[in-house]
Amino acid sequence: MDFVKLAEVRLLNELEIIEMIRKMFEVRNHPLTDDVAYLANGWAYKVDMLVKSTDIPEGMNGFQIGRKSVAAVLSDLSTKGVKPKLMMLSFAFQAGITNEYVSEILRGIKEMTERYNITLIGGDVNKANDTVIDCIMVGRYKMRVLRSGAHEGDDVYVVGDFGLTTIGLDYLLNKKPIVNDKLKNMALKAVYEPAPSVNFNIEAINTGYVTSSMDSSDGLAYTLNEIAQQSNVKIVLNGYPMSNYIKKLIESEGRDPLNDSLYGGEEYQMVFTVKPEKAYILNKLAKKHKVKIFKIGKVEKGSGVYLNNGVKVEKRGWVFNF
Amino acid sequence: MDFVKLAEVRLLNELEIIEMIRKMFEVRNHPLTDDVAYLANGWAYKVDMLVKSTDIPEGMNGFQIGRKSVAAVLSDLSTKGVKPKLMMLSFAFQAGITNEYVSEILRGIKEMTERYNITLIGGDVNKANDTVIDCIMVGRYKMRVLRSGAHEGDDVYVVGDFGLTTIGLDYLLNKKPIVNDKLKNMALKAVYEPAPSVNFNIEAINTGYVTSSMDSSDGLAYTLNEIAQQSNVKIVLNGYPMSNYIKKLIESEGRDPLNDSLYGGEEYQMVFTVKPEKAYILNKLAKKHKVKIFKIGKVEKGSGVYLNNGVKVEKRGWVFNF
Repeated sequence: MDFVKLAEVRLLNELEIIEMIRKMFEVRNHPLTDDVAYLANGWAYKVDMLVKSTDIPEGMNGFQIGRKSVAAVLSDLSTKGVKPKLMMLSFAFQAGITNEYVSEILRGIKEMTERYNITLIGGDVNKANDTVIDCIMVGRYKMRVLRSGAHEGDDVYVVGDFGLTTIGLDYLLNKKPIVNDKLKNMALKAVYEPAPSVNFNIEAINTGYVTSSMDSSDGLAYTLNEIAQQSNVKIVLNGYPMSNYIKKLIESEGRDPLNDSLYGGEEYQMVFTVKPEKAYILNKLAKKHKVKIFKIGKVEKGSGVYLNNGVKVEKRGWVFNF
Repeated sequence: MDFVKLAEVRLLNELEIIEMIRKMFEVRNHPLTDDVAYLANGWAYKVDMLVKSTDIPEGMNGFQIGRKSVAAVLSDLSTKGVKPKLMMLSFAFQAGITNEYVSEILRGIKEMTERYNITLIGGDVNKANDTVIDCIMVGRYKMRVLRSGAHEGDDVYVVGDFGLTTIGLDYLLNKKPIVNDKLKNMALKAVYEPAPSVNFNIEAINTGYVTSSMDSSDGLAYTLNEIAQQSNVKIVLNGYPMSNYIKKLIESEGRDPLNDSLYGGEEYQMVFTVKPEKAYILNKLAKKHKVKIFKIGKVEKGSGVYLNNGVKVEKRGWVFNF
């Protein structure tokens, strides 16, 4: 960093930097408050940077790192109804990187691009004091869905299960043990191999019945608050974003499933609102794609996110402080 | 980095990684051997990552860093006849970054986007052990020009002056003094404020008389060898890629202007070939845009790059070793 006078030093967080960018560049198309940039010509753009020192927990292998760098962008695009088509990749690798490691990362990336028929059209390779994969994706959309479209009376849904990544990250970052082996496997798999329901998401948006949607990777509490805020509505939660089976497993660890699901993050799943009379169509679609969806709440007049006992759900989430 | 058995450890260079990517993903449209990815629908894509620890010499301020991150991509796009339209930016900042520093970087970026009327449509902000700006740009093209189009009989041109960045980088990285103050100022300006001739480049390509072109940022020797190799031709050099005035200034420092111009890099200028009978049109265009261009050689039958005394110009350039 350049030398700056002490009086000018003020540390920033990620959201303040985003706000600076939005103001300075008068950003159009909601790209920095919404998940993707929709262009008028039917194409939509998204970029997401994965950084080893901040995004990669201990024990994640090269294949999983490559896979995750693409999964994160696929989650964002599909949550907005965008079918991925083209990709560019900018890499930075650290000194001493090996053939083996790079090729594992590329294999992980390829697993995702082959599954969704995405063409790599360009990229860049660099050297840095960190490992960085910047994944740029371009796709086609038929319908636009913003975070701001939720209406009074809508049902709130998530693609599940939530809570697992919180438990997995608690184990990896805070060394908090997981007693049940089945839960441990599921929790680690949720962290190491995020699997957004890409095809379901796109088809769901294209029904035209989804009124708002957002990718949940910054945490469910943060995501719900974003939707409520941008839509000028209140969200009241009345259901768990996970199967009963997983809820019981989490409880058997002496943990609170609601807390784990609200204040986690890194799920890469879709959170959305839908007109109640059309919810059956989304449920049918979920069955077709073998995807679990859970009705977790209701959109009401007002503002903020609340549990149905009146407790406020705070807007906390994954935000970098610098 | 993950643990790997010692027998598997083999360090890589940038070109080997690019080759791995090309093979694994069967990359179309020459995006990783050419400067941009041309799509059939008239749009072209380019991404370029700037990394502080490797791309930013001492003394470069935030404004100049931001400016350079965009200039590098503008050079690539315009060299290929692509008019820039849309941009995305992925940032990684280091812990302790200040408001002042971030806003200087953004101001530098804005200086370039305003000058060329480019719209920021999206981005990402991250934290890392390095400062990273990944600049993604999308633009429109009328004509495609590859590195592979040079023909026997064509003239070889550059947009000048070459040599200055070599001297500037020698001063900054190797503490080699520069006696003449005028040269010192020009050399440091060339390093700190690369200024690709965007409008000239695009108009030049759109004349239809440029047979091949490439951005010179990896060094002139490397660039000429790439064009010769991909076009299956020989290039023979017979002129200096700089004005007489600068040539004399460089000589007065006891340096070799030819060596400095061939084995430098970071010029962000266009190297191109043109049919000799059409060269006058390019010269007229250069005058209109107040851009200096220099005829430096001839395309012949054969292979490789040579001085007109028969000395071979080696394919050396800026390539990262990991």
